[in-house]
Amino acid sequence: LSIRQSECAFRYKEIVVKKCQKYTQIWLNTHTTMKNALNPQVIQEAMAALNSAKYDDSSLVMFSGLGNVFCSGIDLHFLISGDRRMAARQMVDALREFTKALIMFSKPIVAVVTGPAIGLGMTMLPLCDVVYASDKATFYLPYAQLGQTPEGCATYTLPQAMGMAMANELLMGSRKITAIEACQLGLVSQVFWPTSMMQEVIPRIQNMAVLSSKALETTKLLIRSHQRTKLDLTNESESNLLLERWLSPECQKSIEEYIANEKNYSF
Amino acid sequence: LSIRQSECAFRYKEIVVKKCQKYTQIWLNTHTTMKNALNPQVIQEAMAALNSAKYDDSSLVMFSGLGNVFCSGIDLHFLISGDRRMAARQMVDALREFTKALIMFSKPIVAVVTGPAIGLGMTMLPLCDVVYASDKATFYLPYAQLGQTPEGCATYTLPQAMGMAMANELLMGSRKITAIEACQLGLVSQVFWPTSMMQEVIPRIQNMAVLSSKALETTKLLIRSHQRTKLDLTNESESNLLLERWLSPECQKSIEEYIANEKNYSF
Amino acid sequence: LSIRQSECAFRYKEIVVKKCQKYTQIWLNTHTTMKNALNPQVIQEAMAALNSAKYDDSSLVMFSGLGNVFCSGIDLHFLISGDRRMAARQMVDALREFTKALIMFSKPIVAVVTGPAIGLGMTMLPLCDVVYASDKATFYLPYAQLGQTPEGCATYTLPQAMGMAMANELLMGSRKITAIEACQLGLVSQVFWPTSMMQEVIPRIQNMAVLSSKALETTKLLIRSHQRTKLDLTNESESNLLLERWLSPECQKSIEEYIANEKNYSF
Repeated sequence: LSIRQSECAFRYKEIVVKKCQKYTQIWLNTHTTMKNALNPQVIQEAMAALNSAKYDDSSLVMFSGLGNVFCSGIDLHFLISGDRRMAARQMVDALREFTKALIMFSKPIVAVVTGPAIGLGMTMLPLCDVVYASDKATFYLPYAQLGQTPEGCATYTLPQAMGMAMANELLMGSRKITAIEACQLGLVSQVFWPTSMMQEVIPRIQNMAVLSSKALETTKLLIRSHQRTKLDLTNESESNLLLERWLSPECQKSIEEYIANEKNYSF
Repeated sequence: LSIRQSECAFRYKEIVVKKCQKYTQIWLNTHTTMKNALNPQVIQEAMAALNSAKYDDSSLVMFSGLGNVFCSGIDLHFLISGDRRMAARQMVDALREFTKALIMFSKPIVAVVTGPAIGLGMTMLPLCDVVYASDKATFYLPYAQLGQTPEGCATYTLPQAMGMAMANELLMGSRKITAIEACQLGLVSQVFWPTSMMQEVIPRIQNMAVLSSKALETTKLLIRSHQRTKLDLTNESESNLLLERWLSPECQKSIEEYIANEKNYSF
Repeated sequence: LSIRQSECAFRYKEIVVKKCQKYTQIWLNTHTTMKNALNPQVIQEAMAALNSAKYDDSSLVMFSGLGNVFCSGIDLHFLISGDRRMAARQMVDALREFTKALIMFSKPIVAVVTGPAIGLGMTMLPLCDVVYASDKATFYLPYAQLGQTPEGCATYTLPQAMGMAMANELLMGSRKITAIEACQLGLVSQVFWPTSMMQEVIPRIQNMAVLSSKALETTKLLIRSHQRTKLDLTNESESNLLLERWLSPECQKSIEEYIANEKNYSF
């Protein structure tokens, strides 16, 4: 452990992890066709990095994406590669475990959204604690187009944050929103200019990291205790129903069509 | 069923129902003194129309009001006509069943608010899924003036959507709000210019209606599962307490005074 | 009781109470170093005033602060005076009872925030029912700086009102917000110009006070019934964890540093 803490950067294949003074940076930097998409490999690495940060002296974790996309959600190409039934099962298992890891993570997570946050890339945000977004970030749930049901506990967290009318507009109506709108809806804590974002955000994170880690963790525990059971149940229900959807011919066809249209994920 | 689906419009007395491609339009068009007010007869027809849409091939239901008023809430003239004790009981029973029907309706409901939404006309909106409003729509709960307690599960849904401070300003302070304000408070999904509203809203509804109805229904089920029990209990409590209020001499007098002032419901 | 009702003002040491037509005004006016801070003595008087208003003919209570500060939160000087262990215990007991009194108070409370609302001065607001704020009011939770965990059920009420991202920005990031921002976040019902605030707010309160007190109380009961159990549990958890924090050397040191910097509480 002490050796690892003295290192400044670890090497992963799909993410970049940097251990800083009292906190850990985790950056998505995947080799997927859709930039920073999540498949079982990416998720496994992200969970390993979270697990390291859980046991080292980090007071908190910063989570972001390298390049011009924060996270484009589930890796749809993975879903239609090889044995599709197997792929869907592996994907749902990884998704369920990743969501659970976020729900259970005891230290604060600061998400830094520098570009598009799509699907799970958006729905993971309410499972983080503080969310800073670039003014050019966009937020979008293509569930209706994909013919699939939501993931990442969005069916619980979105209505709770913004009420039914707006949550359904995002979940069923697939409305794309800006960072300013996401801030007004309670998904984002603050919006920054793209060019100066990191200069403003990093000092804030550093300031938060040197606060009492005991107070931070206890505060997070108090806040999350009210919804942990509900989030767990939602994660289970959503995962089970999503597997069913993914395996349906209707949804498989929608995924193929979505992937065929490169406009859906080239930014 | 097949005969009914081939029809394009059904005839009701107090509402207009139009079965469109993959969805159903329900329009209030009542003969009540207050435009589009809800009494047991109106509610019975609305529930019958919802029930048809539940079993036909509709993916969703659009709910709106014909004329310049979306819905002026409970028909107060009904409450003070004939045997008032009987009228109050019938009204509460109809209200309880209507609220329950909205809570249990498994397909998405898109409310299209073209004008004033008063009392139950406003509180029914969080029980719908998507809410589109005209810029000239207004939202208003005259409960304090009527000396009555809220209805339609507003004591649960309003604080949940917008927090205590604003929910109480509406529920106890009877503040009238605009469509833009209702949107900021999470009651409305989007606001449209009155003149072009229908040209914008109908295509959206058509687009949503041709999506996977299975995905839409499952999404709604997941979203609503978190609150169904609470909504049911709230509906019961509110209905019981409302009957008590309506039967009180204090409230009867307030209703008479409210009705006597035509400004309260002529727009 | 009749004698007391005929009196127009009661004399307390740390608060000013004025019984008006159908409602009661309670004003903080403390002798603490930090203006309108809450210590066991202040809290005892505030609870006695609430208890009077509970049994007299008041339909509601107005709660505000005299001078340029609404409430600067817990009296930190009290915490580090004399036997600190004893002081922390007394303070936590008073805090727990005060929070409980607010949770259980059956008549509406209208908070009138004329200046800074800090710590408990801010977290008590969601336990009130309507919150009117001056445009020059500010809202601030110095918990991170103090190395302490939140109080007044903020770990439940803030995420519920505004979602996780913003609640954590306030609870962990100690962001100071304006009245307009607090209104957008659902903590404040309406914002008023400082100079004309009282001329606008008092008539509203008077209008609300002459409404059916039975309808007001039943409405509040319905609204609060959904969260009373959760608020009680949160109050217990927060109080227990707060005592632990306050007794820690780390937190004691932070409190001393906070107090040493007069900028933290001179406005």
